[in-house]
Parts: sequence; C-alpha cells; structure tokens
Amino acid sequence: MQNFTFHNPTRILFGEGQIANIGAHIPAGARILVTYGGGSIKKNGVYEQIVKALEGRTWFEFGGIEVNPHYETLMQATALVKEKNIDFLLAVGGGSVVDGTKLIAAAVYFDGEPWDILAKNAPVTKAMPLACVLTLPATGTESNGNSVITKAATQEKLAFGSPLVYPVFSVLDPATTFSLPAKQIANGAVDAFVHIIEQYLTYPVDAKVQDRAAEGLLMTLVEEGPKALAEPNNYAVRANVMWAATQALNGLIGVGVPQDWATHMIGHEITALHGLDHAQTLAIVLPSLMNVQRKQKSAKIQQLGRRVFGLEGSEGELIDKTIAATAGFFEQMGVPTKLSAYKIPETSINTLVDNLVKHGYTSLGEHKDITPEVARTILQGAF
Amino acid sequence: MQNFTFHNPTRILFGEGQIANIGAHIPAGARILVTYGGGSIKKNGVYEQIVKALEGRTWFEFGGIEVNPHYETLMQATALVKEKNIDFLLAVGGGSVVDGTKLIAAAVYFDGEPWDILAKNAPVTKAMPLACVLTLPATGTESNGNSVITKAATQEKLAFGSPLVYPVFSVLDPATTFSLPAKQIANGAVDAFVHIIEQYLTYPVDAKVQDRAAEGLLMTLVEEGPKALAEPNNYAVRANVMWAATQALNGLIGVGVPQDWATHMIGHEITALHGLDHAQTLAIVLPSLMNVQRKQKSAKIQQLGRRVFGLEGSEGELIDKTIAATAGFFEQMGVPTKLSAYKIPETSINTLVDNLVKHGYTSLGEHKDITPEVARTILQGAF
Repeated sequence: MQNFTFHNPTRILFGEGQIANIGAHIPAGARILVTYGGGSIKKNGVYEQIVKALEGRTWFEFGGIEVNPHYETLMQATALVKEKNIDFLLAVGGGSVVDGTKLIAAAVYFDGEPWDILAKNAPVTKAMPLACVLTLPATGTESNGNSVITKAATQEKLAFGSPLVYPVFSVLDPATTFSLPAKQIANGAVDAFVHIIEQYLTYPVDAKVQDRAAEGLLMTLVEEGPKALAEPNNYAVRANVMWAATQALNGLIGVGVPQDWATHMIGHEITALHGLDHAQTLAIVLPSLMNVQRKQKSAKIQQLGRRVFGLEGSEGELIDKTIAATAGFFEQMGVPTKLSAYKIPETSINTLVDNLVKHGYTSLGEHKDITPEVARTILQGAF
Repeated sequence: MQNFTFHNPTRILFGEGQIANIGAHIPAGARILVTYGGGSIKKNGVYEQIVKALEGRTWFEFGGIEVNPHYETLMQATALVKEKNIDFLLAVGGGSVVDGTKLIAAAVYFDGEPWDILAKNAPVTKAMPLACVLTLPATGTESNGNSVITKAATQEKLAFGSPLVYPVFSVLDPATTFSLPAKQIANGAVDAFVHIIEQYLTYPVDAKVQDRAAEGLLMTLVEEGPKALAEPNNYAVRANVMWAATQALNGLIGVGVPQDWATHMIGHEITALHGLDHAQTLAIVLPSLMNVQRKQKSAKIQQLGRRVFGLEGSEGELIDKTIAATAGFFEQMGVPTKLSAYKIPETSINTLVDNLVKHGYTSLGEHKDITPEVARTILQGAF
C-alpha cells in the first residue's frame, strides 16, 4: 500500500424524505442560492420539497445550468451571487449542476478571470460553502472536490479540484431517481463502474482493503444496475446503485493505490469530437483498453474476473472472459461497446489520436505507457 | 437500506514516516499536550519521531494512561491542560490512550463533574481539538467519536460518544506496530473482526454496498491476521490489518443497517467479573451467540459462510461450518473460544447473567430478543 492522506468532510444525508432536513445544516440567516438545471426538478416533485424545506429562509434561484455546464452560464450565476449577497449555494440536480456550482463557489472570491482556475490551474484560496441535493447517481461529485466545466465559446472542457469545494452536505434520496430516463440511469451505472475500474484495475500493490472495497462496489453495480432499469421504482435497488456511485469516487477506494484514468482521457476526445455521452465513450474504450493492456494488467484483470464475475480459466481464457463480461455488463445496461455502433467513420481514429497529442496526453495510464500509438491500437480495437 | 446520516471529518495520514508530517496539521502557536500510556513509545522509536516532528513547537507531555483508561488519571491530565493553557491534544498510543484523551478534550470545558458525561449522558457542548498517532490497530477510535472510560474507585466502565471528539487527524503508520506483542495484534484483529460482525451479521435489509464492504474487511482480516502473527515485520500485511481495523468502526459499514452489539455487552460482563481482555471475551461469546441465534440470523450466517469463508452446504450444514470457521479464525489467532479455557467455573454464568440484568441489559441484539435467559444459553454454549 502506498502512503496516503484521506479526508472527506462531506456529510451524507441518505434516504427518502431527507430533503426535509436540509434546513438544519444551512447556517441561520444564510442568503441561499438554489442552482438547478433544465427544470426536471419542477416536474418530479423535488423543487416543491426544496421550497418546503427552505420555508422562512432567504433564498433565490438560478436555473438552466446545462449538461456539461457552460462557463458562460456559471458566470451569470456568479454575478447573481454577488448582486444578491448570497453566502450559501445549494445545487439541486445531477453532476453537471453540482460541478457548475463548485465553480461558482470558487469564482465568487477569485481575483481575476475565473477561467484561469481551469485553464491555468490558478489556486482556489477561498470558496463559498455549497451543498447539494443529488438527483442522478453517476459522477460522485456529491462527495468530492472535483468539477468539470465547458467553455462554450471555445468548446474547451477542463477540470479543477480543491478541498474547498467539497459539498458541506449532500442529500441522496433514491426516490428522486425514480423518474429518470432509463438512459441516464444506464449511463450513471456505467460511469460509476468505470470510475471504480480506473482506481482498481491497476498494477497490484497489495492493498487488500481497497481491492475488496472496489470489488464490492463493482458487484453491487453488476447485480443492481440491470434491476434499476427493469424496476425503476424499486427503492432498495436505486438505493444500492446511488450509494455505490457515491463511494465509487469519494476517494476511499483510490487512496494508497496507483490510478489509471486513460479510459476517461481517451473517452473525453470522443465526446469532444462526436458529442457522445461521457459514459458511452467509457463503454467503448474500456474493453479494448483491457485487451490491449492484457499483459500489464494481467493479474488484476484475472482478479476482477474471479472475484466480481465469478469466472475461472487459464490466464488467457480468463482474461478474454473477463473482458467479455465487462462489455456484456455495459451492453446489458443498453450502452454499446463499439465506436461503429454510433456510425463513427474509422478515419476519425486519426483525428482522435491527433487531439490526444494536441492536448498533451501522450503518456497515459498508471504506467504512463499508453502512448499515442497505443491509444490508436485501443481505438482500432474499439471500432 | 435504512435512512442514515454519515459524517466522518477525521483526516487520515497513512503510511511509514507520516509522523513527520503532523506539524502541518496542528495550528500555528498551539500549546500541545502529548498524551501516552505505559511508555512503549519510548522504546519503539515513536516518541523520538514525535519529538522531532514537534521541534520548535510548545508542547508538554502526560504519560501513564492505563489500559482501560482510569477516570482518575484523566482528571490529573485535565488539570495539567488547564494549568499549562493547553489548546491541542495529541494522543500517542493505542485505543486506551485515544479514548482517554477524548475524555480530557470534553472534560476541560465541562461545567461540573465530568464523570456525568459517562454516568448521566451529560451533553458535550464543547471539546478541545485532539489528534492521534495510533500504534495499535484494534478499536477504530482513531476515526470515530466514541470513548470507553473506567472509574477505578468503583470499577465502573462506561462509554460516551460525541461528534466533537472525532480526532482532527490520525496518523496510521503500520511500521509502528512491528514491535507489538503477538497477543496485542491477535486481540486487535479479533476486536476488529467482531466490530464488523456486530454491524453485518444482522437481519438483512438489502444494503448490498454495506454488506460487500463488511465482507471485504472480514476477508482481509481472515487472510492477513494470521500472517501478521507469522511475519511481524511484513509492512504490507500490517498495513492491510491497520486500515481494515480503522474502517471496521469508522461508521461507514454501520450506516443504514441494523446493529447487534450483544456480543460486546455480554463480553463486557466477563471482563468486569474475570478480568479477561476485551477481545478474549468476544471470541468466547460470538460463536455461541451465532449458534443460539442460528434461526434469526440464518440468512446472514449463510452469506458470511459463502462469501467470506468460501463454504457451501445445506442450511444447517452451512451454518455449522460458518460458526466453526469463525471460531477457527479466533483460535488461529491464538485466542481461545471457550470460557473453560480460562478455568472459569460454570457457576460464574449465574453471576454474569445477574450482572447483565443489574446493568439493565435485558433485551440485547438487533431484535431486542436476547433476554437474560437467552444470554444464559449463550454463556452455557460458550462454556
């Protein structure tokens, strides 16, 4: 196990009806800005629950934060925060709303152009407290300090992270996910699955606690993911998926172990070039990456096969079966695992590799051995 | 899954050499009191590391905190805290030192006789910040708000808990455990194992994430515990045991599920009457409790057998095998599983049951169905 520091100060309020309890965790006298997205919270009853929970409090709202939240939109929200003397942010929605609100929290106190936080890694030295009511289990942003923002003007999609933007509290009410479209639940489960894999399917370092924790979360998603699609109103199933997705990226399974993230970086280029959903790109890249890295990741792929999918066989057989089981899970969730499923021409592969180079991603993976040529082989295998 | 709140603000600094980094996490200008136990830290190099890490800081020390820390001793430390205007406590040692320091932290600001915090559940409204350097993996106190204190004058052993006494940070350096006597490592692994069981081996509520997390920790202890005895200087093994013991009682596997704790309550009476180590009593009580509650806990005992010990069989067979495997693990760690191993007369059982009644423990377990008569059957089975 490698040395590590772990600190996650977010308070989790989990379960049906927990929105009613948020008032107790927002400072008395706070001037609150409720942020949200395209308005689904006004259809599924969540908005009414928020209104009721904030009765008697001073609050304002800012809707319309996009999927892949736009910097430009968030700067409008930041102006509103200053205008209304807001001092507490409450993000209500999925990962995009939470990520966007993290940038607002940092931008309010930032001296200069806040885009520098993303483009130049300008340090965040102060942030407004923020909390969230999560309505879509997927990214884990409800319990970490990470955020991904898109500048619409230039189509740049960049990330920042700071311990100052961990939500103070996050409400996870599985009942708020009942009305989600199947595609969003499927994408969320695939996203969480790959988050775990990026921290787990790496060179083994004898971190048994982290391995077992990761395997437990993977098994939960494999067992409960398809049920979440088949029985959208099954509370217990949605609860397991939601809690698993949070723990997939709250830092706990990633401490003390090498991390990969090559699937994410290659996937980002596919989203940028062809507009596929983030999870769709992960489902395409991961199985091919596992195949291309079958030697380097041999021990861990076999462990995944044995422990998570209950497979057996000689080394080569077991690796093949494990890759097939991983792709099979994605397909079972309704997420295709080949570029060709999206009618993307094979000639795009050159552009995708060129863009990786252009963005400086020339040595990806926990061994830094995924060069542009290896990435090309991965994309060819995913075609 | 039941509704829950989870919040664990303790920062974990894990790994060899982390003691050197504590200065960065103690406020500048703090007046620090270092608390410790019988002096083993002066033999194993930990004290020297602390001295070096606190170079240039204002600090004092208070040694001699006992196993099962005495209220009387801790009141002396509290007086020293006031006399020296201390404002930060650093506990260095095992669970007793950390538990004791939590009481000091609360007692300093307590208006009245601090024993009321334990005896009358008097609320803790303010506590001094405390941190710890853990040298014995066992109780989980390094990452929770619980503490158990003994009043020597009356031999009362009582507990309190408060969110205000979570350590600000805890250093977990597996290398500091190399010099521990085998008995302490064995007791620690058994203690952590039973902490997990108390939160896991309960009526199932379809909390798959918590189940898998608990099973992962149990498997880690079963695999690594015996190795920790056989290879005392194996860093990787000690690291896995140490991190598993922390997570066994940091709250994460216990949220959203029923909890039992009957093994602990019955075990406490054995310690009080016969002076056995805490873990020794747990190893005696648990296998018999599993047997007596084989119907109520049937599904979970079978799940434990299949998933943790890799067992199979019909319901009755599988339960028998799982109980035998649990007892087998304790025996393998060198901790006996029968009262008779300690030459305790069978007549003690009456006294133990009487004491449970006297202390008000007449309906234990997650179903409140462990009456004094059921406890008697458990103790007879453990004889």
